[in-house]
Amino acid sequence: MSQARRAVVLLSGGLDSATTLAIARSLGYETYCLSFDYGQRQSIELEAASRVAGALGAHEHRVAHMDLGAFGGSALTADIAVPKDRDPTEMARGIPVTYVPARNTVFLAYALGWAEVLGAFDLFIGVNAVDYSGYPDCRPEFIAAFERLADLATRAGVQGLGRFRVHAPLLTLSKADIIRRGVELGVDYALTHSCYDPQGALACGRCDACRLRRDGFRVAGVADPTQYSPTEAP
Amino acid sequence: MSQARRAVVLLSGGLDSATTLAIARSLGYETYCLSFDYGQRQSIELEAASRVAGALGAHEHRVAHMDLGAFGGSALTADIAVPKDRDPTEMARGIPVTYVPARNTVFLAYALGWAEVLGAFDLFIGVNAVDYSGYPDCRPEFIAAFERLADLATRAGVQGLGRFRVHAPLLTLSKADIIRRGVELGVDYALTHSCYDPQGALACGRCDACRLRRDGFRVAGVADPTQYSPTEAP
Repeated sequence: MSQARRAVVLLSGGLDSATTLAIARSLGYETYCLSFDYGQRQSIELEAASRVAGALGAHEHRVAHMDLGAFGGSALTADIAVPKDRDPTEMARGIPVTYVPARNTVFLAYALGWAEVLGAFDLFIGVNAVDYSGYPDCRPEFIAAFERLADLATRAGVQGLGRFRVHAPLLTLSKADIIRRGVELGVDYALTHSCYDPQGALACGRCDACRLRRDGFRVAGVADPTQYSPTEAP
Repeated sequence: MSQARRAVVLLSGGLDSATTLAIARSLGYETYCLSFDYGQRQSIELEAASRVAGALGAHEHRVAHMDLGAFGGSALTADIAVPKDRDPTEMARGIPVTYVPARNTVFLAYALGWAEVLGAFDLFIGVNAVDYSGYPDCRPEFIAAFERLADLATRAGVQGLGRFRVHAPLLTLSKADIIRRGVELGVDYALTHSCYDPQGALACGRCDACRLRRDGFRVAGVADPTQYSPTEAP
């Protein structure tokens, strides 16, 4: 009986990372999910990650605490207003204020450390270069540079026990394609959370994340299970 | 009046990072020192970092909490015995159990995030490829790969505002050379802490870090200000 290969999956609790976990599972990986409590304003996100990990049969789920928010510089961790009601053209222009400096670098570095302890060489991250074209650390060249670094940074890489691979299966998919793929794989998107500015348990419906998500369900022709705030929705 | 360039300096409280900070200061940088509370067994190390930052005129010193130790896999964070009384030949053989998986990758990633918020492009790290030849993330090829990643990972790098540089001024120096350089720059090594297995406030004198440090002072012809445990010293 062969042992399942292990993979570390970065899991935020959002639509993209849930789909990424489902893809890793469908490829036969034993999945070790990693979420971060980094001073983001919504713990609702971490609760969603826990629900998603359970529903999709993750082998283990850990939440690592790190005070990335202490540096400020982002609307997701500091006291900067989350932009609302922007159309896709506006979103694509420049790097948004919701960008957290070096976030994916820190997350992948941490995942790499856990992978090394687990004897895993596969990391999964739900970055997407279509919707988040403005985020430098969501681009294919960033992913490739990180793979190269991982082989040089680790005992396992240096000893030639394997080569690290950063899987970014959503990289070139549209939001609608991501949703279609997730539905095929049985993802229950009602468990996920995307909103940058939730009103209690309800999504605002107007931030970039909500708009991309709503449009994605509409284009995919899939019913949107998200509960939006009635006072906020446009 | 020109503004001093800012640099983020990784500061552990040990001999190497104290010297690195002194070098960054001597080059005219306004220094932002970063230490990590990552579940290492000695908080004495963080107290040393704070003393060193103060004594060397750091502009700011932050301690970031991250539970890197939760993954285990190292004698510095897990319940694995610290090796004692090894000679340099033994130390150089293979990767020691005191290696913390992906530690420098995580530390540099975090430093990069802070640098981006500060508008800094210079990171300083006290890695050394002579004494720590067994650590994959203390090698020049690792440093070069991280610089490449940094330019791709950040808003500042992508927008071409500057190029990130990881300064590793101790990379090819012997421990004696490091101590000589530090003494020239006025580093008070009595403030620093290197021991992997301290007995109260006293250094054990027998772990790899103590042995390298003792030998360094001896070869440099500098009086060793370290207080060693009388029961432990060989």
